Amino acid sequence: MSKTALIDLDKLNEECGVFGIFARDQLDVAEMTYYGLYALQHRGQESAGIAVADGKTIRYYKARGLVPEIFDQDKLEELEGGNIAIGHVRYPTHGDTNIFNAQPLVIRYKKGYLALAHNGNLTNAERLRLELEEDGAVFQTSVDSEVIANLIARQIDQGLEQAIKNTISRLKGAYALLLMTGDALIAVRDPYGMRPLALGKIDNSYVFASESCAFDTVGAEFIRDVKPGEIIIVTNDGFESIQTPVPLKSALCIFEFVYFARTDSVIDGVSVYAARKEAGKILALEQPVEADLVIGVPDSGTTAALGYAEGSGIPFGEGLIKNRYVGRTFIRPSQSVREQGVRIKLNALKKVVRGKRIVMIDDSIVRGTTSKKIVEMLRLAGAREVHMRISSPPVRFPCYFGIDTPSKEQLIGASYSVDEICRIIGTDSLEYLSMEGLLKTVEGSGCDFCLGCFSGQYPVEIE
Amino acid sequence: MSKTALIDLDKLNEECGVFGIFARDQLDVAEMTYYGLYALQHRGQESAGIAVADGKTIRYYKARGLVPEIFDQDKLEELEGGNIAIGHVRYPTHGDTNIFNAQPLVIRYKKGYLALAHNGNLTNAERLRLELEEDGAVFQTSVDSEVIANLIARQIDQGLEQAIKNTISRLKGAYALLLMTGDALIAVRDPYGMRPLALGKIDNSYVFASESCAFDTVGAEFIRDVKPGEIIIVTNDGFESIQTPVPLKSALCIFEFVYFARTDSVIDGVSVYAARKEAGKILALEQPVEADLVIGVPDSGTTAALGYAEGSGIPFGEGLIKNRYVGRTFIRPSQSVREQGVRIKLNALKKVVRGKRIVMIDDSIVRGTTSKKIVEMLRLAGAREVHMRISSPPVRFPCYFGIDTPSKEQLIGASYSVDEICRIIGTDSLEYLSMEGLLKTVEGSGCDFCLGCFSGQYPVEIE
Amino acid sequence: MSKTALIDLDKLNEECGVFGIFARDQLDVAEMTYYGLYALQHRGQESAGIAVADGKTIRYYKARGLVPEIFDQDKLEELEGGNIAIGHVRYPTHGDTNIFNAQPLVIRYKKGYLALAHNGNLTNAERLRLELEEDGAVFQTSVDSEVIANLIARQIDQGLEQAIKNTISRLKGAYALLLMTGDALIAVRDPYGMRPLALGKIDNSYVFASESCAFDTVGAEFIRDVKPGEIIIVTNDGFESIQTPVPLKSALCIFEFVYFARTDSVIDGVSVYAARKEAGKILALEQPVEADLVIGVPDSGTTAALGYAEGSGIPFGEGLIKNRYVGRTFIRPSQSVREQGVRIKLNALKKVVRGKRIVMIDDSIVRGTTSKKIVEMLRLAGAREVHMRISSPPVRFPCYFGIDTPSKEQLIGASYSVDEICRIIGTDSLEYLSMEGLLKTVEGSGCDFCLGCFSGQYPVEIE
Amino acid sequence: MSKTALIDLDKLNEECGVFGIFARDQLDVAEMTYYGLYALQHRGQESAGIAVADGKTIRYYKARGLVPEIFDQDKLEELEGGNIAIGHVRYPTHGDTNIFNAQPLVIRYKKGYLALAHNGNLTNAERLRLELEEDGAVFQTSVDSEVIANLIARQIDQGLEQAIKNTISRLKGAYALLLMTGDALIAVRDPYGMRPLALGKIDNSYVFASESCAFDTVGAEFIRDVKPGEIIIVTNDGFESIQTPVPLKSALCIFEFVYFARTDSVIDGVSVYAARKEAGKILALEQPVEADLVIGVPDSGTTAALGYAEGSGIPFGEGLIKNRYVGRTFIRPSQSVREQGVRIKLNALKKVVRGKRIVMIDDSIVRGTTSKKIVEMLRLAGAREVHMRISSPPVRFPCYFGIDTPSKEQLIGASYSVDEICRIIGTDSLEYLSMEGLLKTVEGSGCDFCLGCFSGQYPVEIE
Repeated sequence: MSKTALIDLDKLNEECGVFGIFARDQLDVAEMTYYGLYALQHRGQESAGIAVADGKTIRYYKARGLVPEIFDQDKLEELEGGNIAIGHVRYPTHGDTNIFNAQPLVIRYKKGYLALAHNGNLTNAERLRLELEEDGAVFQTSVDSEVIANLIARQIDQGLEQAIKNTISRLKGAYALLLMTGDALIAVRDPYGMRPLALGKIDNSYVFASESCAFDTVGAEFIRDVKPGEIIIVTNDGFESIQTPVPLKSALCIFEFVYFARTDSVIDGVSVYAARKEAGKILALEQPVEADLVIGVPDSGTTAALGYAEGSGIPFGEGLIKNRYVGRTFIRPSQSVREQGVRIKLNALKKVVRGKRIVMIDDSIVRGTTSKKIVEMLRLAGAREVHMRISSPPVRFPCYFGIDTPSKEQLIGASYSVDEICRIIGTDSLEYLSMEGLLKTVEGSGCDFCLGCFSGQYPVEIE
Repeated sequence: MSKTALIDLDKLNEECGVFGIFARDQLDVAEMTYYGLYALQHRGQESAGIAVADGKTIRYYKARGLVPEIFDQDKLEELEGGNIAIGHVRYPTHGDTNIFNAQPLVIRYKKGYLALAHNGNLTNAERLRLELEEDGAVFQTSVDSEVIANLIARQIDQGLEQAIKNTISRLKGAYALLLMTGDALIAVRDPYGMRPLALGKIDNSYVFASESCAFDTVGAEFIRDVKPGEIIIVTNDGFESIQTPVPLKSALCIFEFVYFARTDSVIDGVSVYAARKEAGKILALEQPVEADLVIGVPDSGTTAALGYAEGSGIPFGEGLIKNRYVGRTFIRPSQSVREQGVRIKLNALKKVVRGKRIVMIDDSIVRGTTSKKIVEMLRLAGAREVHMRISSPPVRFPCYFGIDTPSKEQLIGASYSVDEICRIIGTDSLEYLSMEGLLKTVEGSGCDFCLGCFSGQYPVEIE
Repeated sequence: MSKTALIDLDKLNEECGVFGIFARDQLDVAEMTYYGLYALQHRGQESAGIAVADGKTIRYYKARGLVPEIFDQDKLEELEGGNIAIGHVRYPTHGDTNIFNAQPLVIRYKKGYLALAHNGNLTNAERLRLELEEDGAVFQTSVDSEVIANLIARQIDQGLEQAIKNTISRLKGAYALLLMTGDALIAVRDPYGMRPLALGKIDNSYVFASESCAFDTVGAEFIRDVKPGEIIIVTNDGFESIQTPVPLKSALCIFEFVYFARTDSVIDGVSVYAARKEAGKILALEQPVEADLVIGVPDSGTTAALGYAEGSGIPFGEGLIKNRYVGRTFIRPSQSVREQGVRIKLNALKKVVRGKRIVMIDDSIVRGTTSKKIVEMLRLAGAREVHMRISSPPVRFPCYFGIDTPSKEQLIGASYSVDEICRIIGTDSLEYLSMEGLLKTVEGSGCDFCLGCFSGQYPVEIE
Repeated sequence: MSKTALIDLDKLNEECGVFGIFARDQLDVAEMTYYGLYALQHRGQESAGIAVADGKTIRYYKARGLVPEIFDQDKLEELEGGNIAIGHVRYPTHGDTNIFNAQPLVIRYKKGYLALAHNGNLTNAERLRLELEEDGAVFQTSVDSEVIANLIARQIDQGLEQAIKNTISRLKGAYALLLMTGDALIAVRDPYGMRPLALGKIDNSYVFASESCAFDTVGAEFIRDVKPGEIIIVTNDGFESIQTPVPLKSALCIFEFVYFARTDSVIDGVSVYAARKEAGKILALEQPVEADLVIGVPDSGTTAALGYAEGSGIPFGEGLIKNRYVGRTFIRPSQSVREQGVRIKLNALKKVVRGKRIVMIDDSIVRGTTSKKIVEMLRLAGAREVHMRISSPPVRFPCYFGIDTPSKEQLIGASYSVDEICRIIGTDSLEYLSMEGLLKTVEGSGCDFCLGCFSGQYPVEIE
């Protein structure tokens, strides 16, 4: 059955979110993880899972669907007890909706049980797989966690800590990783710190999450980000941090600030909200235009639009209204309906746009198909001019670190110049934020950034 | 199983939305109705249904759930063919989730088949039921449509038009009603025009909808509102309008502008967006406050907040972020989680509110429980002051015309003064828009308004 | 979606089963009804429902599916409390799977609430409907219960008892009817006693069921059959029996003994098992054949086959094995598979039939398609001769009293002589039980029988 | 949610069934496997799966539930194409209903993809797992197939054939195994031939199945049984049989004839039907009793009962009727209902048993709880005497080869003498078939048998 999912096909899409908790107080760790995943749902809507350790064994449940669809009271009760839990939400890469690829991955190995939840993408996963296969390993899934689990298992005789160190020394690419044994919770972030991973506390209990917004949801206090190359091991004995060697420059995915992360998260010292608003402001300075109204494409363009309004002095308004009940639909629209497809999701506010010269702010253009429809919609609603401003540079290159990028033919920035895109989309003018401008929005951070999807230059070599 | 639904318990909630189409061109009327109901989903999330007439008989499907959950490709295909359709989305009044109360109601009577979809509430329904029962009628549902169907059936010997006229002369209360026979589509709006109902066209086909946003979604052109007391009959022979007697003053529900309707709808000549923004502006003049930032409670408070910012000159900002995946959840939060409950849905943006004097705009306060939590959340996030401004007068009285109002004990405005509410909610100040202010926001309209929930004065006597 | 249901398309199929209980002791009446319906599941597999009265109101739940699929612990708990309940299982007539036609039908009328569960078919239902419609009634379903409810409602001013009397005086056809008000349970059987209805007791509580096997299941004691034309009213005040006028001869459906009823039921004084076995014995005398083995077509032909074996002295054996997991399947078999279709359900036991002259006993032949395939299967398995003996006369005429008969073209007995059927099915010989023989099997009963499907002569005129 | 499943808790239960096909003609291999599994459903009702190879890759779908519940038209269409398929039905051992344990297991390894479907149980699985873990292997399931897959993967450098040979040389216990690569189908039966596995053909296509009844269902011809210790490899190049070393005596599970297999299957040359009937006959000679009627406990006791009747000259009758709609129920019966629990499934036929001296035949007694209830039921129905005869010796020992045996405390034969069981169950007499008698029933077979559950002597040492 063909479904038009609630994921946005004209955006880059995140592949995963992780959450973990080691409770030293009386806490229902499965329930906490449930709410943590709820807060991270925007990072993956295809499947989700929770695994719970109680000192002896690991119980888990994972299934396809949204977090509240998967877990009801019965399911959560089956996961009650235990003091450690990890959870995962997953985005469907390349249409892979096989439940057997859902995470956390739970394995039994020489030392007992191990659960893994991974956000990111290894660039040498296939080579590692082949090496492991050469050595007799078998694989049941296509997720990187299985490669990591096999590597750890083969080196476990040196102790868990050393096995993890050895394992990550062989991994290339991006990973924010949560590992759970029967009695330990381990968080690992790749040496470049490409994917975010934050550490928090609830009283005496430790929590980890892809984004700090999950801490707010479960009432945890943000402590700090896990550092690039850092391994944190939480056990009943305490909290241990191990710093593995890191490159000179880190490479946090800047697109987390552009689009992926929730506005209310703070990543590596930078407020996502502040970065987006600043992007709009700088964009206003870099790419001014004479206009009557600034509007954002909801929901992701709104914050930058407020910044653009502030930067330009042009008033901000709501020109586009989103149907907040748009979700999974199981209908293939007929031809006649398809022609006006995008209306199901967005509608232009005639009252606001009629006769106006509009600056429309979006965070990025991926395929350009939706942008084209929105521009048509605004013109139909009476907009006199439509100027599009994008609060990041053109996306021109694929991501190899966990983001599902369309093929080069579908990626409009890869095939066309800005002028051509402007003509294709039908705007009166189209301008992007400069790379320098973008970098300014995240200046407060101590870290460096991966700009690969804009520049084609990646922190690590791609196999 | 107890569910926390995606309806907002701290708002008044609409009870229904209707959509109808009479196609004279090749159109899949069931599919059009599907998309029309999709656009009206905010008016009812409990159940939905579509009925299709093909000249001979009426087929229908109705079930519990959201529109895209109920109708998949198979179900829509079973409704293919036919040239007339009506649809309905329903809000669960008083926990009534009996599928047998879903609409459209389809009945067989003396003259064949009749389908009815009703938005509103009859104030004399119980009396009419008793009269009909006295005369031998039996009822299988608790919906007003069944009363209306029985009244029509008993007078059908005078012809359909006359039967409808006689019937509506006996109805008291609010109704925006779509009726479908095998070969006619009939729209009726009560003499006070309490519930909205609009007329549109797609080429040669007529459409009706509770709100004009449904027309935008299906690509229809808005023609005009159905007039209070008007009966419109569309058949293959043409389009006939019958005006029944109306009172001196109409009484459109003003809360449609305050909260119910979608921002992109236009009702009786007034843009919902414009009314909401104007409400904010007037509120800024009526109830100024020295502050650093205006924020709205998403999603319903945003437009008024923009108006307040404009009116006051205080900048607008995003201080509260909504989890856009919040929906039905089947979990009863444990005590520890419940205490911080509202975070699942909303989060405060520390970066934005910290150290600021905040004006927080919401459209209304019903129970006050959510408002209290949001204020706490803002203070926790570092807000220096929180001033609440409500873009409508206090809701103090129940609605008898189709809106599910909480009991007097739960309706905070019914029991407490504004000062008391301010203390209960914990804001530094709390002010409401005046009644005069509210009426100014809808001034452009030719019609008069029901202000019952604010004033306790209703256009019709309540039985 | 096309489904091959678990109903047998080569049999006549019962349309309904009813169960009711009036508890005077502490009994969970909903649970008792659940188990009662479980025992009657063979009478209807399309939908089921239970309604419970607690003195004030009537709660109910009905849905599509088998009894254990519809009712889980949650659903039964919602029906807890109350001291009266009625339930219904329904067979899908003419593909009508509309949930709105499920029973019990629950209505509100002048005197409160009324629930109805009906097994049978009124032959004048359409006329009564038209009369009621003429008088202003509206109908939401196509079930006879709705007609009955309307008739009662219109005469209720004379009191419930009189209203029921007046109502049934107007009904023509077959009905075993359970009615429930807030505080009374009423059982009615049509004047011909066409459909079975039995009365039982559990301690001080009364139960009614279509078949006595339901009493065994719930631990009730069989008291007696409800008499043709009898109305039994059970209230807190006691048990009242009212005898309405009846015709000279009753007309119990003899097919209940041939196929419909469960073997372990006793109807109107005759054991279904004994009747079936006797049918086999008489058949052996009427239609002897030289053969080596008697086999039955499972499950319905087994008892008669045992009788034939006893009557003929030819040994009984298991020649056909049924897959006991055959149920609903959602697959349309491909052409190649369809050609051997019947194997999914039945298989011949080569070891038993090889080289043998077989007498195969079935209770009836409706379309003949399955019989033909079984005969082929037996020959393929090595049967030397296959003689078919049917333990009832040829079904040649439609039933108008609640049984779904195929159209004349599909009813093989209506179009072909026994010799022709023998050739079509491919048996070496084919013989049916005589009408006299069949009547002998039920001799012990005090009642008379409807033989309409065999003789075309019906106890009441068909409109 | 607690469920009373449709599995019989008073029986030993089979753990699995397998089906495989290598098509050389145009056949929908997924559909054929679907019907093959349908025929084997009695061997496992917890989950099922089908994997299809098309030369390049392996697609699969597996889920919890019955075969027709899992696979609908959509699911089968997703598996269309391909020319090899294997399928599996699984019984829920020890309440293990984790979907991740469903089979076929599909893995990627050095040489591509491999799918495995296993019926049986390895007695050295845990040791092999530990050895593999010692060597770095990780396990995601608790099924033996994963162990086998790992062993093959580690030896694949010697070629698939040799890897399989080496692998099975290390396996101890029972296995009927189907393996599928991208272009080969391999069947393996353990050296003792403990679990059945048969070979068939449809035109030029080869099929394998746990029981021959699956061949009848899909229209295949039975060719022969796979031999103990035989490896059969089917590729496009042809059909190769490899005979690995076998012990002097084989050890086919004799309980397949007693209870597990379907009556219409033929295993290792012996008709299951014939063996069961013969068991009844011998039992009649070994353990005669003066009685009026022989009845079987449906469905499994019927055939032996027919044999007992034949052997004793006492007439056979149907004394117990089974509700053929008994299936999964989601209700926990209340105390009052539980006391008469077994009636939901079985009912005694008063007409048949009243006043009679009954010989009741069952194939085995495991816990004895059901037997006790049936005896009570027969006495309540008026039986004068109830003599129980079991068509196999007492089950006194656990099975280690793939059958879920209850713990010693629950296994009535392990704790009590026959006399004590007789008293517990409440029969007038109780006798079992002797071991010699049982062996006579399978005399025709060329093979030897495992009698472990009766004798405690197993063909292989138990670790």
